Amino acid sequence: MKFNSAASFTDRLSEAIEKKGNPTVLGLDPKLEYIPRHILKQAQQLSKDYADPTEEALVLFNESLITAVEDIVPAVKPQLAYYERYGLPGLRALLRTIGFAKKRGLIVIADGKRNDIGSTSEAYAEAWLADQLPKSQGDETAVVNPFAADALTVNAYLGSDGIKPFIDLSQAYNKGIFVLVRTSNPSAEELQDQYLADGRRVYEMLADQVEAWNQGLKGKCGFGPVGSVVGATWPKQAAALRQRMPSSFFLVPGYGTQGGSAADCVRNFDENGRGAIVNSSRALMLAYKRRDGYCEEGFAEACRAEAIEMKQALINALNNV
Amino acid sequence: MKFNSAASFTDRLSEAIEKKGNPTVLGLDPKLEYIPRHILKQAQQLSKDYADPTEEALVLFNESLITAVEDIVPAVKPQLAYYERYGLPGLRALLRTIGFAKKRGLIVIADGKRNDIGSTSEAYAEAWLADQLPKSQGDETAVVNPFAADALTVNAYLGSDGIKPFIDLSQAYNKGIFVLVRTSNPSAEELQDQYLADGRRVYEMLADQVEAWNQGLKGKCGFGPVGSVVGATWPKQAAALRQRMPSSFFLVPGYGTQGGSAADCVRNFDENGRGAIVNSSRALMLAYKRRDGYCEEGFAEACRAEAIEMKQALINALNNV
Repeated sequence: MKFNSAASFTDRLSEAIEKKGNPTVLGLDPKLEYIPRHILKQAQQLSKDYADPTEEALVLFNESLITAVEDIVPAVKPQLAYYERYGLPGLRALLRTIGFAKKRGLIVIADGKRNDIGSTSEAYAEAWLADQLPKSQGDETAVVNPFAADALTVNAYLGSDGIKPFIDLSQAYNKGIFVLVRTSNPSAEELQDQYLADGRRVYEMLADQVEAWNQGLKGKCGFGPVGSVVGATWPKQAAALRQRMPSSFFLVPGYGTQGGSAADCVRNFDENGRGAIVNSSRALMLAYKRRDGYCEEGFAEACRAEAIEMKQALINALNNV
Repeated sequence: MKFNSAASFTDRLSEAIEKKGNPTVLGLDPKLEYIPRHILKQAQQLSKDYADPTEEALVLFNESLITAVEDIVPAVKPQLAYYERYGLPGLRALLRTIGFAKKRGLIVIADGKRNDIGSTSEAYAEAWLADQLPKSQGDETAVVNPFAADALTVNAYLGSDGIKPFIDLSQAYNKGIFVLVRTSNPSAEELQDQYLADGRRVYEMLADQVEAWNQGLKGKCGFGPVGSVVGATWPKQAAALRQRMPSSFFLVPGYGTQGGSAADCVRNFDENGRGAIVNSSRALMLAYKRRDGYCEEGFAEACRAEAIEMKQALINALNNV
């Protein structure tokens, strides 16, 4: 594995957030039901030639949203499930979305929650983080991996040997991972909040592992390649986890539709207002449905208005700490 | 969701194992490095027209292995990571492998260890278990989902609301899931073996959830749609888990390359020698490298010889209990 001397993932992420003054990531979890009719029609027309209407609709929708917010939002997070459920057209739409976002200078977090034993985690790490595809027989030129994101969400139920290959590959390519520590959903507590015999909760034990995995690997910003997913819906736990994992960058789901407020999210940031990025998917993608004064045709503008409001809410909440 | 009145997944799986007298699943985790040169050459020739050499090589390799064992092995388990790492050609190879195995009457277990919050788990369930793709605008005819497997492996770190959508869809389409309970890798113990304050280990708590999820959903064979992944490398735990989850069908990794023996695997079966299926990936795929008397060209025959030996070892071990 070659070592890349460019900036680390968390340094790039911190810089992008700083530059745009906005710790928001746009979640791209598209469904055909979400997509305005004029976009679906446009996709149908494109598909008369050779293209697939589902692929074109997902791409047109995502590209419009990205274009609408690219100057104010530092990162996007496609949720892989929503592309897999449309089969190959969905996966081609994912590939094109990742490429488009990277071309526009945005950081891409692939939300796949991948996990397995070591040898298989290595394959997942190559799939989603390696900039080059494996060389094929008879063709020794490196092939660009069009699915390569900047970071991947992962699940650590299998322990260190299932996580290490992701860290190694992150180091080689200046990429990052976000380990599920305390998720935002109602039943997260069933396993994650259980007390262990040693007095820690399950998610606290994982948090201690995350902190250990980052040792010796921190970037200039003070954060290592092993980020954490810590939901906005449990602000008390978030505050404690922020103390417990000073080296880990937080990816914060649960804002908006799932019930987390800007004030809740603030608990995921450090005392300098750094080290976290807050996701919003449906509230941004579907802003046109709930904001006054927007029709379907204005879905991208509605997303931008919502993103500006979210940015302001987060900045205000951070200033009020 | 329509309800399908055909046989449940575990009934179909039990019947297939019974019929072939073999509780083995062939793991299909292909890498180009594993594929014999004559297959790579054949793939190169095919690709001179229009096809992709990587896609063709993976498909030729998998189809040869399936054809070699289809009369003695009841199921195959493609490990999704190994297809994702080859990008779209890899995913097309996966789709063709799933289709080929189903056409040959084999049961297909997609090993993806998917997991997320409820709404996203629903999308993963649709991606890998639903027989139809979502309808698209202007096209109300149901489209066959070429990625649809018979079962999917899932990770339950997010709790019940992340698992329920998989169970619901399994019920609608007579499919199944295998929840990671106790995995076969060395670091599995880090989290899974931790003692909880209530005296159970983490994996025992999950086992109790699996058993609860199956209540009211058992098929004629006595097993419900919620199977468990329980490694062959920890036979003592496997025996205890078999008692603890009488309603759960076990998928058993870790045989062969990872160190589990036939005698170890037996602990995963019930007193009637039922309710478990043992996976072997590398030992079967790469049998030509380690068995005497086989060259590269005989990789499929070597796989068959190895599969017969594995079947015999498992049957003997089951008879010796």
